[in-house]
Amino acid sequence: MSSTKDIDALIDMMAKLPGLGPRSARRAVLHLIRKREHKLRPLADLMQIVAATARECDRCGNVGTTDICDICRDDRRATGLLCVVEDVADLWAMERAGAFKGRYHVLGGTLSALDQVGPDELRIPGLVARLAEENITEVILALNATVDGQTTAHYIADQIEDRVTLTSLAKGVPIGGELDYLDDGTITAALSARKAF
Amino acid sequence: MSSTKDIDALIDMMAKLPGLGPRSARRAVLHLIRKREHKLRPLADLMQIVAATARECDRCGNVGTTDICDICRDDRRATGLLCVVEDVADLWAMERAGAFKGRYHVLGGTLSALDQVGPDELRIPGLVARLAEENITEVILALNATVDGQTTAHYIADQIEDRVTLTSLAKGVPIGGELDYLDDGTITAALSARKAF
Ligand SMILES: [Zn+2]
Ligand SMILES: [Zn+2]
Repeated sequence: MSSTKDIDALIDMMAKLPGLGPRSARRAVLHLIRKREHKLRPLADLMQIVAATARECDRCGNVGTTDICDICRDDRRATGLLCVVEDVADLWAMERAGAFKGRYHVLGGTLSALDQVGPDELRIPGLVARLAEENITEVILALNATVDGQTTAHYIADQIEDRVTLTSLAKGVPIGGELDYLDDGTITAALSARKAF
Repeated sequence: MSSTKDIDALIDMMAKLPGLGPRSARRAVLHLIRKREHKLRPLADLMQIVAATARECDRCGNVGTTDICDICRDDRRATGLLCVVEDVADLWAMERAGAFKGRYHVLGGTLSALDQVGPDELRIPGLVARLAEENITEVILALNATVDGQTTAHYIADQIEDRVTLTSLAKGVPIGGELDYLDDGTITAALSARKAF
């Protein structure tokens, strides 16, 4: 490589980000160097600010800049409804849909024998504690439909099913989805949960 | 979005980088926030360093940290051979292939009537000047096999064909293909079988 050490190191760091690879990292870094005053420097400044201020919410695990996040502090969302998700990205996806008005609990992953992730590595003790503190009446288990996601859902259900109503997101055909593109499990689930037309 | 202003702004800036989009930007930023001490802060520091030190080589347009880049200063590469490429990414692709031992000239784009890019927007005057200064005997036109790339190659040929031997990379570069997408072997083969332009 003809570029110098720092530029190579920057490309390497970018290439390791999820969703990027060596080629997109090279393109991104060249683009940033070309616009180093208008893009690279502001991006670096913003990253410094976020590195200094971003943190997980003490209560739900959402990402924000305060010890308790905006959603947890919003009294209008104290609805007794709690939506359990694996990751902050899932919380953001729910918020973009705009259909949920309760609060969240971000586990920070799933149980995994393979990766040696047990309940205490996740925010499961915190979830149990919140049920009483916040008068939760329903917990929606919005975990991914993977083996680890469903194992985790069943584990949580065992811990709390005697205290609250437990629900999960309906399985079915996505809006705008074509049957031909769906996996068999989704079609089977959608069929068995079919409703009167 | 539940995240705060700075985090949203960081996602927006990342999403605008070439090769990324909103979804990969969200994933990358969450990943960085999760590892803010070990990844986000070092990445921000490195970007500040690169923003302060990176620059284009005065002679060839390559990216580096000195006014004249490592390749231009390498006497072993003063072979009388000059390889003309559109972009620094193409230069890097040639260097990864490791087959070319001369020097480069990075045009910084292609002529384009549509985008109103003329010869003076590119490093074409600089190319002409280098021929005499560096005793260039052969210029390899390694431009992409696109309409604009080939238009640019013909324009350059008109300017300099009476002064040097002109060659281009052998067919083997796919029609519509871009150097930066090619594997090292294809680049090496196309280079060694180069023909008179
Ligand atoms: Zn919260
Ligand atoms: Zn140079």
